[in-house]
Amino acid sequence: MIDELKKLPGIGGKSAQRLAFHILRSSDEDAEALAAAVRDVKASLRLCSICNNITDVEPCVYCTSPTRNQRLVCVVEEPTNIAAIEKTRHFNGVYHVLHGSLSPLQGVGPEHLRISNLLRRIEAEQVDEVILATNPTVEGEATAVYLSQQIKWAGVRVTRIATGIPVGSDIEYADEVTMMKSIEGRREV
Amino acid sequence: MIDELKKLPGIGGKSAQRLAFHILRSSDEDAEALAAAVRDVKASLRLCSICNNITDVEPCVYCTSPTRNQRLVCVVEEPTNIAAIEKTRHFNGVYHVLHGSLSPLQGVGPEHLRISNLLRRIEAEQVDEVILATNPTVEGEATAVYLSQQIKWAGVRVTRIATGIPVGSDIEYADEVTMMKSIEGRREV
Repeated sequence: MIDELKKLPGIGGKSAQRLAFHILRSSDEDAEALAAAVRDVKASLRLCSICNNITDVEPCVYCTSPTRNQRLVCVVEEPTNIAAIEKTRHFNGVYHVLHGSLSPLQGVGPEHLRISNLLRRIEAEQVDEVILATNPTVEGEATAVYLSQQIKWAGVRVTRIATGIPVGSDIEYADEVTMMKSIEGRREV
Repeated sequence: MIDELKKLPGIGGKSAQRLAFHILRSSDEDAEALAAAVRDVKASLRLCSICNNITDVEPCVYCTSPTRNQRLVCVVEEPTNIAAIEKTRHFNGVYHVLHGSLSPLQGVGPEHLRISNLLRRIEAEQVDEVILATNPTVEGEATAVYLSQQIKWAGVRVTRIATGIPVGSDIEYADEVTMMKSIEGRREV
């Protein structure tokens, strides 16, 4: 069991041993519940065929929601990014998860990302706008540029989330590139 | 001397004593140079009559630069903000320093900020665009809103620097308000 636990991220030899002894000391029911939870998560969770989000129902709750704007698609790198956007309570569209970002140096090309069902979706359904919400990193920007080239021909409105100074922060603490992007991205008031 | 040094920001009793003994031990020339520097800075530095920046020449180097676009004015809260924007090497306009931001709770109203010569400048000279580069804080936003109302009647283009996720950062680490602003401020690509 220690060998299996050591495979988990952030769990080294000592932690694995501590966890193993904790499970050994716990009741039969608790141990069985943990084993069942691990088995169930693999059996019941899959990727939504429409948006690639991790889900226990097919399609996922966002893709079938009648109150959400199915014609506004927000593209993110990872399923956890959806939680970050949902927390704002201000986005009422649907999502598309790429499961990564383009990184030629690490050998991640377009073929490694889940792009094809996004393009099919744009072609088949009526999509008004695609928001590219990949991270403002080198990889995220490259992915956004690549996607915008792939999508633009369809005549869909393609937008990129704003890069700039975070709310509550001070211009003084902004790095040069962020400051530059903030000036470049200024908007009429 | 210790009493005088204690008035400086971040200098307490112990630091003041250490500084005083250092000056006492230093050479006559060094002590004289420090005294002269303190006297000179008050005698030679003033605020530029056009933009309120701290300067040793009147008007300041930005306001008289022939290579800068004098019709593009960037409004900042403090003189130090100019350094932050200059570091980007991408802004070629001129500045206007407010020397503060609106803060009703702390009793700072429009009359405490240096706004009048900005309005005169917009009225008298040909200004194409005013960039409101106050901080994305409550006070900075309030100041930007107030200024935009004051300037708009002149028919000048008024813009606000972009608020959003900093370059190189991850959507995961953005607070909710910044994430919301980043989606709201999205731009067509």
